Amino acid sequence: MLSIDVRPEGVGVYPARMSEQSAKPYLVRAICEWCADNGFTPYLAVKVSPQTRVPPSFVKNGEIVLNISPSATRKLTIDNEWIQFSARFNGVSQEVSVPMNAVSGIFAKETGYGFAFAIATDPVTSLAAATASTWRSRHTRPRGRW
Amino acid sequence: MLSIDVRPEGVGVYPARMSEQSAKPYLVRAICEWCADNGFTPYLAVKVSPQTRVPPSFVKNGEIVLNISPSATRKLTIDNEWIQFSARFNGVSQEVSVPMNAVSGIFAKETGYGFAFAIATDPVTSLAAATASTWRSRHTRPRGRW
Repeated sequence: MLSIDVRPEGVGVYPARMSEQSAKPYLVRAICEWCADNGFTPYLAVKVSPQTRVPPSFVKNGEIVLNISPSATRKLTIDNEWIQFSARFNGVSQEVSVPMNAVSGIFAKETGYGFAFAIATDPVTSLAAATASTWRSRHTRPRGRW
Repeated sequence: MLSIDVRPEGVGVYPARMSEQSAKPYLVRAICEWCADNGFTPYLAVKVSPQTRVPPSFVKNGEIVLNISPSATRKLTIDNEWIQFSARFNGVSQEVSVPMNAVSGIFAKETGYGFAFAIATDPVTSLAAATASTWRSRHTRPRGRW
């Protein structure tokens, strides 16, 4: 225990076992509370999947970044499985719901401080994404990383 | 924002600016809540300093690891500046208080999951340590890294 990694700069993170309940929702709530207490804007990064309910026109490269500050949302709830709220997008109120396993990051807009999370890969989604990518790369763009 | 660091494994951490209120107390509370909900034992690692009030006989290499689970403590409070509680050490109840800036880690005993934090160096302590190190290196050991 005394060999705990104390770095001169930054924060170290210990790995989690896969069998335990993820600490992710606890960290998302922690960063949201820290943002609220410091006047920062919490931004939630989400990897879009069939389980996410988000405004499609704001999705870029399969990801969406959502402002989940109290002033931008109504009825925000962050439990261990879901983040849910309603918000206005282009003036229209929409319901948003995101499963915790689709959350790829939480950070303060103003400072960038926060967390990036690993996203478990869904084989079906991956296959669809790979197919789409191949189709687009064949028909609209040169091959390569894009 | 879409360049957020999503790693295939583990959790990424963004750096904090020095001017902002540390997110450390929020993360300590988050890990404690996660431990409580999952039946884990939260261990708090502390770098002992003149500001820490801890049982000296349990200090090793200037650090102490404290069990801060509800079953091991009474009147536990974790605010943004201090962690305080009373606990029994060798059967004797003692008051413990630790400034947040002395907390070097919080993790689950059972899994090791948690955080290690950077500890700001106290100039006076550093000077004393440097002096002691120089004295010892001159009188008791060959020069070098030790």
